[in-house]
Amino acid sequence: MSAARILVAQGGGPTAVINQSLAGVVLEARRYGQVERIYGARHGVRGVINEDFVDLAQETTLHLERVAATPASALGSTRDKPDLAYCQKMLAVLRAHAITHFFYIGGNDSSDTVRIVAEEAAKAGYPLRAIHIPKTIDNDLMGNDHTPGFPSAARFVMQAFAGANLDNAALPGVYVAVVMGRHAGFLTAASAAARTHPDDGPHLIYLPERVFHIETFLADVKAVYTRLGRCVVAVSEGIHDASGESIAARLASAVERDAHGNVQLSGTGALADLLCDEIKAKTGIKRVRGDTFGYLQRSFLGCVSDVDAREAREVAERAVQFALQGDRNGSVAIRRTGDYAIDIVLQPLEVVAARTRVMDDAFLAAAGNDVTPAFLDYLRPLLGSGLPQAARLRAVPVAKVLDRG
Amino acid sequence: MSAARILVAQGGGPTAVINQSLAGVVLEARRYGQVERIYGARHGVRGVINEDFVDLAQETTLHLERVAATPASALGSTRDKPDLAYCQKMLAVLRAHAITHFFYIGGNDSSDTVRIVAEEAAKAGYPLRAIHIPKTIDNDLMGNDHTPGFPSAARFVMQAFAGANLDNAALPGVYVAVVMGRHAGFLTAASAAARTHPDDGPHLIYLPERVFHIETFLADVKAVYTRLGRCVVAVSEGIHDASGESIAARLASAVERDAHGNVQLSGTGALADLLCDEIKAKTGIKRVRGDTFGYLQRSFLGCVSDVDAREAREVAERAVQFALQGDRNGSVAIRRTGDYAIDIVLQPLEVVAARTRVMDDAFLAAAGNDVTPAFLDYLRPLLGSGLPQAARLRAVPVAKVLDRG
Repeated sequence: MSAARILVAQGGGPTAVINQSLAGVVLEARRYGQVERIYGARHGVRGVINEDFVDLAQETTLHLERVAATPASALGSTRDKPDLAYCQKMLAVLRAHAITHFFYIGGNDSSDTVRIVAEEAAKAGYPLRAIHIPKTIDNDLMGNDHTPGFPSAARFVMQAFAGANLDNAALPGVYVAVVMGRHAGFLTAASAAARTHPDDGPHLIYLPERVFHIETFLADVKAVYTRLGRCVVAVSEGIHDASGESIAARLASAVERDAHGNVQLSGTGALADLLCDEIKAKTGIKRVRGDTFGYLQRSFLGCVSDVDAREAREVAERAVQFALQGDRNGSVAIRRTGDYAIDIVLQPLEVVAARTRVMDDAFLAAAGNDVTPAFLDYLRPLLGSGLPQAARLRAVPVAKVLDRG
Repeated sequence: MSAARILVAQGGGPTAVINQSLAGVVLEARRYGQVERIYGARHGVRGVINEDFVDLAQETTLHLERVAATPASALGSTRDKPDLAYCQKMLAVLRAHAITHFFYIGGNDSSDTVRIVAEEAAKAGYPLRAIHIPKTIDNDLMGNDHTPGFPSAARFVMQAFAGANLDNAALPGVYVAVVMGRHAGFLTAASAAARTHPDDGPHLIYLPERVFHIETFLADVKAVYTRLGRCVVAVSEGIHDASGESIAARLASAVERDAHGNVQLSGTGALADLLCDEIKAKTGIKRVRGDTFGYLQRSFLGCVSDVDAREAREVAERAVQFALQGDRNGSVAIRRTGDYAIDIVLQPLEVVAARTRVMDDAFLAAAGNDVTPAFLDYLRPLLGSGLPQAARLRAVPVAKVLDRG
């Protein structure tokens, strides 16, 4: 077999397990005698065009395992979305370093970059294998049952809402928490896993798969509050009106866009604050509090689904196998084959590249403010083992003495 | 010994371990033959005046242990701050139910309530023992080395900043996170425990014990960003200007105050957003993100310091012992007697009641934007065992081929 030189990079938003995939590439590649070099590009594709490489062969196995258990992209990441010229520049650098195999761990934008680079290499007659390794907390990659990174973020959201529900029961009022997810509501929907008892929150869940009507929202909140004396609400940052304009963007005084043309929805508490202001003004409810989970849901140190960690490792190991044993390009994907079992396949890059998966209608309750039991069946095996449990007092009442009314 | 009837309640903001104290009261009280009743008041002192009691003798031991491991006040809480008339009404209810021992788990406002109720009982010649059991994530009770609830919240803040630091290193920019703490900076200061390497964030820490100057803040951020290409900032929600006015309140369009006359600082992302806007406008740095940790830092399910859980249990067991064996009133307090060892004592209610402890000068760095090593020595034993660890790649650079400059 001819000599192989491997380059791996990480793109897009970090996750709790993206370094499992990095370790998976490096440790699997070490098994192949023909692999001469294992490089990492710092800060994704930007590190490629800048020739900013580190020698991953010099990392010890023990240390790689420690990095694997650490959240956030250890190589650094980037929001750059390469166009054709950028990809051609990348290819020139890959050739200069005689890279034969390129692995890019990322979301749908990253898979599109892999697609362009692979096409340019083929056009140029340069023998490059290019594989996209999936990751995204948004769970929005086509052709995947779910994506590495989502289960751990979902676990964080579940643990956050389970606690917030208890806090709200202790000091009743309305609590609104905004969860990441621009187009796909999976992560916000995961809040439903926080419920144990029928009156547990979140009592209302709003997802970007449905049009958000502020009047319906206020009526929903008021109805729950009237019934229970409190209300916990999960809202996706990507909720939008009938015209498709996001509720957050409509309210932001200065709209900031990244290199992909995306509006900045994260890193600001504006949406939660606005929704709370609306509730206070229109319902007369006094204790109304809002949180925005922000970066913690993807980076918090110490909240990992063991299922997610294992799968993130395996998709990367399989990526190396597909490339080095199978001599193939493509995008690695997780398919569910049992309850609970998965298979890891390689699909054409075109299936994933720059496309977005959203939640199936079967996962969305008809009323537009909740998920279905089918979604919980889908989600539960992903959350991993050892989930913390909340317990409430049985609370047997004592007869009144003074006030016998 | 004469018959005893016990009433326990929880007041103020919930914590991760306040139910350990509830379980501690109930399980310790079960050891005493003279205890005829163990009641819980729902929603703190409000449950007392409303005669809203539950019979805790009917909770199983196993179930109480599950509740103990659950965050947020299982009996419910309240923000009511009783005045004399309110306390007299409480006393009337206690007498009607022949309560002989009242335990109130709470912060400095709750200890003041215990003080008034105890005084009124003494004046009326009613034989009541009243004990305050400490809890607060703010760590601001006088006469305590630290308070139950703080260590677990500090652990959350540490894990949050450790992850946020990695995220910020992966996608560089400025990251500002706002942490709870109205007058005392302990919880914000705990962010310093997130650092492992010299260039780890938080790079700047602003506490309410020092006057906050926006110009100094901006210069600090710019200096760190120039040096490292990124900057992670921890800010207490209670930061204020030279006149004592809080930076958050100065900016809030509508100021909401609770029954204690406190401005609402939590449950809104306004402070983080404002500071980010200032940084963007005045420094020219483009990627600036803000988070407000909000209610998660006190209620997140599954982030507990085992040291904290143990101590929260023990202060309550000792409270019952002080009252039933010692026939004493007072406020239970934790004193540090070794590295690391504590003693649990009973101090006069007047020491704690309605007073606020802030950080010692020895814990604050001279520059006003960091803590000292002495604070980290103080904090570390409290965070508990099994803290997750972050690891970074050793990252040995590869020589450039194309760009040899």
